[in-house]
Amino acid sequence: MPKILPVSYENKFSYNIIIRNSFDELLENIIKIKDQKYEKICIVTDDIVSGLYVDTIKSIFEDKFNQVIIFTLPNGENSKYLGNIEKLYEELITNHFTRRDLLVALGGGVIGDMTGFCAATYLRGIDFVQIPTTLLSQVDSSIGGKTGVDFNGYKNMVGAFYMPRLVYINTSVLKSLSEEQFCNGMGEVIKHGYIRDKAYFEMLKDHVNEVLALDDAYLEDMVYTSCDIKRNVVEIDPKEQGIRSYLNFGHTIGHAIEKNSNFSLYHGQCVAIGMVAAMYLSVKKGWMEQKDLEEMEEVLTSYHLPIRADHMTVEDVFNASKSDKKMDGNKVKFTVLKEIGVADSYMDFEEDELKEAIAYVLNLSSK
Amino acid sequence: MPKILPVSYENKFSYNIIIRNSFDELLENIIKIKDQKYEKICIVTDDIVSGLYVDTIKSIFEDKFNQVIIFTLPNGENSKYLGNIEKLYEELITNHFTRRDLLVALGGGVIGDMTGFCAATYLRGIDFVQIPTTLLSQVDSSIGGKTGVDFNGYKNMVGAFYMPRLVYINTSVLKSLSEEQFCNGMGEVIKHGYIRDKAYFEMLKDHVNEVLALDDAYLEDMVYTSCDIKRNVVEIDPKEQGIRSYLNFGHTIGHAIEKNSNFSLYHGQCVAIGMVAAMYLSVKKGWMEQKDLEEMEEVLTSYHLPIRADHMTVEDVFNASKSDKKMDGNKVKFTVLKEIGVADSYMDFEEDELKEAIAYVLNLSSK
Repeated sequence: MPKILPVSYENKFSYNIIIRNSFDELLENIIKIKDQKYEKICIVTDDIVSGLYVDTIKSIFEDKFNQVIIFTLPNGENSKYLGNIEKLYEELITNHFTRRDLLVALGGGVIGDMTGFCAATYLRGIDFVQIPTTLLSQVDSSIGGKTGVDFNGYKNMVGAFYMPRLVYINTSVLKSLSEEQFCNGMGEVIKHGYIRDKAYFEMLKDHVNEVLALDDAYLEDMVYTSCDIKRNVVEIDPKEQGIRSYLNFGHTIGHAIEKNSNFSLYHGQCVAIGMVAAMYLSVKKGWMEQKDLEEMEEVLTSYHLPIRADHMTVEDVFNASKSDKKMDGNKVKFTVLKEIGVADSYMDFEEDELKEAIAYVLNLSSK
Repeated sequence: MPKILPVSYENKFSYNIIIRNSFDELLENIIKIKDQKYEKICIVTDDIVSGLYVDTIKSIFEDKFNQVIIFTLPNGENSKYLGNIEKLYEELITNHFTRRDLLVALGGGVIGDMTGFCAATYLRGIDFVQIPTTLLSQVDSSIGGKTGVDFNGYKNMVGAFYMPRLVYINTSVLKSLSEEQFCNGMGEVIKHGYIRDKAYFEMLKDHVNEVLALDDAYLEDMVYTSCDIKRNVVEIDPKEQGIRSYLNFGHTIGHAIEKNSNFSLYHGQCVAIGMVAAMYLSVKKGWMEQKDLEEMEEVLTSYHLPIRADHMTVEDVFNASKSDKKMDGNKVKFTVLKEIGVADSYMDFEEDELKEAIAYVLNLSSK
């Protein structure tokens, strides 16, 4: 049975998230989006996902639409820049795409963010659908309408809030991921438990084996619960003026580490390390206990996630976190934990405190 | 007395248009936008407007905000491309601009469209204010939230719907325009009469001398009425799914002529020629009479607007109009007149009819 999560935007229905273990209901859900049928479809994908699913998806569409074209980018974060958006614009112009046509993002977060940004800005906005193929994009980046590209090394510096018309999640594709790729997504999944749902966190802690074995029932429930947490947060605060920033738990220092690793570490891995730093600060402030920090390190490790980074300096990570766009005016807006399942924002960390937490996850003293 | 036009977006108050003959109320209106004061301001302008007003505007802001920076582009349509948007992103990043800061567009349509697009996409959206300095931008492009840049010669191919927080119009700046520049704006002003307001059209027809003498009372009333017509249309149809397309009267063939002139003709001039072509088609269909076409040509000529173009072929203009993004699917969506003051959309012109109208304004036979 497919699970359906309707997502509202500004108190009106905006789009459905469909969670299934096949592509069987993709076509009917795209046709249902609006009364008038789309004329042409451009599938945007990367050169790894392309080999796995693009033929399947193309054959699903081919009979029903006038034209199906495929635009393929090299896999990876390095593709996420404006030059590639311009190439996609050119492809759409060459094929006379108009607002009656549809973009389909088939891939991970990079593909979803870029396709969304292109959809937001081509002809001032055309429709797009997300078909996320990594755990990270299924539970996180495909939901909530954040689109964007990196700019001069700054992650998602350029972007738009722009809602997809459908998010179609086929959990069976997760079985084609490497363990490292799968566990990368677990960084965000575990974060969802920490910021909003203690019982979910406990489930993840107690059922590592089932989850890592990609047990179908656990997988579908897990993806559903994570999507539901994200849905709930972005419905309350679509433009990140309040609680949406809780989703940044682990991200301020995590992004800075990601940048300093030159993106050799995966996003979810950096979020794991960033959560450890944020937990360290929460312990330091007396909101959480040392045992919570230890438990976090154990759980992350059980999901093969790193809890420390190396080959970088405190100063470099600190400077990168300051220039991260989570900055609100001159203060770093930091997401902390008050309890497991209860996040909060804190604006008043001193430079020394932040550096101490960074030093902790770099295995360095702060001096 | 300043005139104030509040503009709604999706049935909620969105921003004010303030019409005055000085900059005296600019500061107080920017401060009124939101409770929390903006920290930094980036004035985006061009190298011609800069010499005229940037010192005035900068001194108005300087005491009240932490930092005021100026970003200057070369005047003209050739500046309107993504490379310059990237330069502006860089300037904002270098100066640590965040969502607490403000962009101010000081200039004509190119500056307004580009500043708006940058505001829409930097950090997924920061606030911006329009201070339009040409008649064309005061009555047209600054209102309604269309932002964008040209791409590979296609006008506004890339953009976003993104609302300003304030449009501040100082009509006295119109006195610094050349007559050609002023009359360029009259192309859109006259269009407003044709598509929505017969009495306004009659006023413009009967008071050419007063308007061209830049009589203060006529000027303020005219800018107010045009802004009010545009406000009304964009409130009803912000995303151009219905009657907003009436504003494209004269634009389908106008844009194609603009492109074929290599942008040596001004936008308003091309709209004038495009309106003649659209009126020709309306006469051909029997909705309007030959005398309406003659009257249109007289009125446009009295405002020193061209009614014919040369040095281009019917085929080239036709092809450019087909690739204009007003295209809806494979059909050209054409705005026609049913009466003076009453526009309508028409999708079913034959290729031959469009070519005949193009030939008419090129002074060529269609064969």
